[in-house]
Order: sequence, then C-alpha cells, then structure tokens
Amino acid sequence: MISPLPDPVRLAVDCMGGDHGPSVTLPACRAFLDKHPGAELILVGKPEALTAAAAWPRCRIVAASEVVTMDDPIEVALRRKRDSSMRVAIQQLKEGRGGEPALAHACVSAGNTGALMAVAKVLLKTLEGIDRPAIAAVMPNAAGRFTTVLDLGANVDSSAENLLQFAVMGSALVGAVDGIEEPSVGLLNIGEEAIKGSETIKQAGELLRAAGAAGQLNFFGNVEGNDIFKGTTDIVVCDGFVGNVMLKASEGLASMMGGFIKAEFNRSWLSKLSALVAMPVLNRFKHRVDHRRFNGAALLGLRGLVFKSHGSADAFAFENALARAYDAARNRLLDRVHERIVGTLQASVTDAGHNTGDSAATAAQAA
Amino acid sequence: MISPLPDPVRLAVDCMGGDHGPSVTLPACRAFLDKHPGAELILVGKPEALTAAAAWPRCRIVAASEVVTMDDPIEVALRRKRDSSMRVAIQQLKEGRGGEPALAHACVSAGNTGALMAVAKVLLKTLEGIDRPAIAAVMPNAAGRFTTVLDLGANVDSSAENLLQFAVMGSALVGAVDGIEEPSVGLLNIGEEAIKGSETIKQAGELLRAAGAAGQLNFFGNVEGNDIFKGTTDIVVCDGFVGNVMLKASEGLASMMGGFIKAEFNRSWLSKLSALVAMPVLNRFKHRVDHRRFNGAALLGLRGLVFKSHGSADAFAFENALARAYDAARNRLLDRVHERIVGTLQASVTDAGHNTGDSAATAAQAA
Repeated sequence: MISPLPDPVRLAVDCMGGDHGPSVTLPACRAFLDKHPGAELILVGKPEALTAAAAWPRCRIVAASEVVTMDDPIEVALRRKRDSSMRVAIQQLKEGRGGEPALAHACVSAGNTGALMAVAKVLLKTLEGIDRPAIAAVMPNAAGRFTTVLDLGANVDSSAENLLQFAVMGSALVGAVDGIEEPSVGLLNIGEEAIKGSETIKQAGELLRAAGAAGQLNFFGNVEGNDIFKGTTDIVVCDGFVGNVMLKASEGLASMMGGFIKAEFNRSWLSKLSALVAMPVLNRFKHRVDHRRFNGAALLGLRGLVFKSHGSADAFAFENALARAYDAARNRLLDRVHERIVGTLQASVTDAGHNTGDSAATAAQAA
Repeated sequence: MISPLPDPVRLAVDCMGGDHGPSVTLPACRAFLDKHPGAELILVGKPEALTAAAAWPRCRIVAASEVVTMDDPIEVALRRKRDSSMRVAIQQLKEGRGGEPALAHACVSAGNTGALMAVAKVLLKTLEGIDRPAIAAVMPNAAGRFTTVLDLGANVDSSAENLLQFAVMGSALVGAVDGIEEPSVGLLNIGEEAIKGSETIKQAGELLRAAGAAGQLNFFGNVEGNDIFKGTTDIVVCDGFVGNVMLKASEGLASMMGGFIKAEFNRSWLSKLSALVAMPVLNRFKHRVDHRRFNGAALLGLRGLVFKSHGSADAFAFENALARAYDAARNRLLDRVHERIVGTLQASVTDAGHNTGDSAATAAQAA
C-alpha cells in the first residue's frame, strides 16, 4: 500500500501555455490555492505577465523568457526556445545533480500536446519498463462515472507490449486519482461479427489475459467503441491513432448535438420561451456533459508527472487540470506506476520460468 | 455521364434478417412500395411468414427455408445454412449462367454484418480493380448535410492502396445516392501536433493527392475525427478498425447524451412539466439526430449492390435502407464505381508511364 505524500504538494504551472495564457491560468491558480490549503504552486512565465500573483501565499514565481505557441513545431519547442515556460515548468520535476529532490511533484501545461510530450520526454526520460509514454484522459459515461482512455495520440502503431504497458499505467492512474484500486481494463476492439481485430490486438489480448490471470491487473476483455460511454470498464486501452480519432469524433459529435439543441431552442419566440422554462433542466444536462469538468490529461510513462490541459481551457477547466495533477501527485502516481510495472515484469519473468505460456514470455522479452 | 436505370428498379429483400424479421421488414416494404411507384420487390423468406404480402402489387415472394441469426458465426452462414433468406436474397443479384440479367438490381438485409459481407463476397466476388470491399454509411453533420464514412469495419489493417480504392468507391456512392458528382474526400488522420499518422496513412495521402491532381477524385487532404461531424468533407476515408470504433463510440455517446436529457427532464414534476412545454423543440432536435433516417450502409466493391440495415432497425429505419438501395440501383452505382475505378487505374498507368512519381506507379501495381 502506498501512503499519500505529506503536504505541501507542489505543482509547477506553465502559466503562458494554451490559447489564453495568464488571463486563464492565473485565476485558475488562485481558485485552486483557495481550495487546496496543502498545495503550493511554482508559477512559470514572463514575470511581467505574472505580477498579479506576486503577493499570493504558497506561491513562487519562476521566470521564463519564452513561450511555446500552439503552432510551434516540435523542433522549435525542443531546440530553439530553451527558456520557454513549458520547458522551465517541466524542469522543476527533475532531481538536482547531487540527488536533491525535485522542486515540484507535478507539472501542468495547456501548451501544445506534441511539444509538451517531446520536451517532457527529452527532459524527464521514460520510466524503466515503459517503451513509450501515453496520453490518458477521462470521459463521462452513462453509468454516471468516468472512463479513462489511453492512448489518445502519443503513439501510432502501438505494439501488443505497448498496449499492456498502457493498461498497467492506466490502472495506476485510476488508483491514484479516482481511488479505484483494482480498476477494470477493456481492450478496444471491433464487433464480434467482424474479423476480431488485427494481429496486434489479438496478441495484446493474450498479454492482458495473462497479466489478469497473474493478478497484475483486472482485465475485463475486449470492449467496443460504445462501451467507452456505457462505462463497461474503468479503463479502455487502445492505439493512439484510434484513441485520437475517437476522442476528436466524440468532441465533434457532442458539439454538433449541443449546436442542434441551441438552434432548435432559438428557432422562434415560442421555442425561446420554452428554453426559458426548461433552463434549469438544460443547465443540469449541460453540467453532466461539460468537458471542462474532465479537463487534465496525464502524460504517463515519464519520470515525472506531467498533466496537459486543453489548449482552449477556461479558468474553471484549467483549475480542474490542476486538481487532477494535485491528486495524482498526492497519491504518488509515479510510485504506483513503478510498483505496478515492476510487479508485472516480475510476474512475467516468473511465469515464463514456469513455462506457463508464450505471451508471458513475450511480455518479459519486451521489458 | 451515366443515365438512370429505366423502371422498374427491382430490390431483393431479406425479410427474415435483423432483430425483428418480417414484423419490421414487411411494413417497411409496404411503405416503400407506396412511395416508389417505379420499384418492384422480391421478398425472400419463409413463405408462411410472408403471407401478408401475398397479394401486394409489384411484389414477388421467393422462398428460403433457413434464417441466419444475429449470432450465427460466419462459417454457419457460409457453409451450413445454404438456403438462408440472406443467401437467396443476394443470389438474386447474380447473372444467369447464359448471361441472362440478374433478377434484382440491389439487395437489402438487416442480418449480421460479418455473415452478410462473407456471403456476398463468396457469391458475388469483388469488382475488378478492388482488392477489398468496404462498408460505407452516412452520419449527420453540423452543416446540415451528411458525411459518408468508409470503411466502417469490413477490414482491419488497410493498405494505402485499399484506402485509395475506398475513396474512389465512396465518390461513386455519393454521386449516385446524394447527387454530388465531385464529392470532396478527406483522409482521416490525427492532429498535426502528433506524429501525423502511420506510414500507411502517409502513403495513402500521397496516392490520394496524385489521384486528385489527375482529376480522378476531389481530394481535400487530411481531416481529423471532429471533421466528420463538422462536415468538412463529403467523404471521410479510414481503416475499418478506426471507422468501426469511431462509429460505435459515436452511437454510444449519442445514446448517453440522449439518456442524460431524458433523465434530467424526468427528474421531478417541475422538470416533467418543462419537458411538456419543450416537447416540440425536443422532437425537432430528436429528428435531426435520429439515426434511423441515415439507416442503410453500402457494401461497396462487390459485383452487385448489397445494402445493410441496422439489425435493430424499426420499419421506418428499414424503409430508409430500402430507399437508399433503390437510389443507388437507379443511379447505377455499380457502373459508376466501375467507371471511376477504370479511370483511376488508367490515369495511374499513364502517369507512371510519364514518370510522374512513385505513388502513381504503386497504384497501378496494386491493380
């Protein structure tokens, strides 16, 4: 059992990132601090843009002279803007050369995903036992809970071993942030009618079944696209290409449906009147599907906790990303991922020794 | 220019397929006949289940003693149930041994997708120039039109050449059914931030760009998941695994959102009252996202027009699938696909001869 971190838990915030920069990140930080008395923040950015926060309690400003824009190519973020707020914020997660503890326990940025992942990979490196990091986020489901889905676009062409690692990391994340210690894991696949997935998916299914049998994770089996929103499992694992298409299609569909509702209620004075009557109900509905509540994707598999906010997040959404990062850090997500990965690898090696099957051996090889 | 088929256009209907069988398919056929005076139907199934239709005009009953259930494995549909309504309905699309024209111009079934595709492939064979058939369906978009997406699950691991062929077939379909002669085609990919897709997607992009430059189709470029519901292009092309996940996730999300609206309006007597007031608006919204209106997926790439209705379709939905099949047959979808494929292949060969690039040569090789 992993006990929570003692206070203060410290977050490094890239205050310049995202579509809106400090006009959104600062109010979010302020609201976050008010609700989290055990938290401290390192606000990273251009000092002249952060003067409002100069006198805040439990806050420290760290200067960074450059900003990675939403359109900056990865190369620019990596090689040219070496004093960007994004890079300096991630830097706070690194241990000192003499082994001094890192200045922050987690980092949050609304900057562009590709750049954030690339800079984090270079600065932090991947965890032992993890070949590739993944992006994990939650989506609401019909069961009134959340489904954590990964990978949402860090990788294309994931191998079966990658998918197993995603499942392990996702289980650690849900344990840390949502408090579900043995979350169920589904492998995203297509209808039973069809050819039941590619070779990679079939192999991943074998690896996951073996890990489930060894008690390393709670593997449910194959799930389909609709199971994400049904809430069939706590976690859904997929390749980043598939996950990214699914995520963006869902955003597009939700926005289209919201637009249709709005248009129909705005069509005539009579429908506008009924909108007035239905307002409390419509607001409750809006709250349930409000994606700002679920903001804050985890970049998993790195030697440091990096959370990514939606670029267009408002203060409410960005505050939620801060809260997710705080929960993850406080509940030692990094140690949890490490413990689970070690457990899975050891089990695989032992199993292979006992000759219980190819798939376990493959998992061990992949380590 | 391809002129429409003269009447009568004849459809073969698998009356036993789907979750509900004749209790849904027969009323749908009746309504369809009333609205399409130029149409004739061949009703395939157990004669005792089809007696209601015995005296209908422009109708003929063809007996089939077996039924492929929704759970039947493909093997059973292919080898064991040789007198199934599904198989006999598809059989109506085959030319006679002496070259006599086929009995029907298109076939519609609500039976299970895997079985339908397998039986259709074996009986009809694929068209020249097409390596693999694909499943195409329409989804509503925010522009108030429809986006045709393929493949939705006939294939996993599609090659770049497959994706080009999907684009060509999709263009023919939209031309025939929606009357857009040069529909725009988008290639489904992931955000520019990320690694811009797999090698296959990049190659497919090259093939599509070459085909676009040669005037063989109207290639727009890469699109993302949200573009499907934005209506950025008329057609979106993707691998069947990705398409199937996207389709089912969208169904799941729409159903979740619908469930949330219902639950919130049912929460108290006050909200129920406001539902009453908002009813006309809610009904118009429901109509706009009613998937029954878009029912009827095309199995493209076969030597015969096969349309697949949703298994759970009601009479209204099944009638729409019949109407789509009718439009496709009337506007000679098969000839259109053939013409476009031949055009694309010839252009590729010519281009390769003029040494304009590897991608065109690859397309020619693929033929």
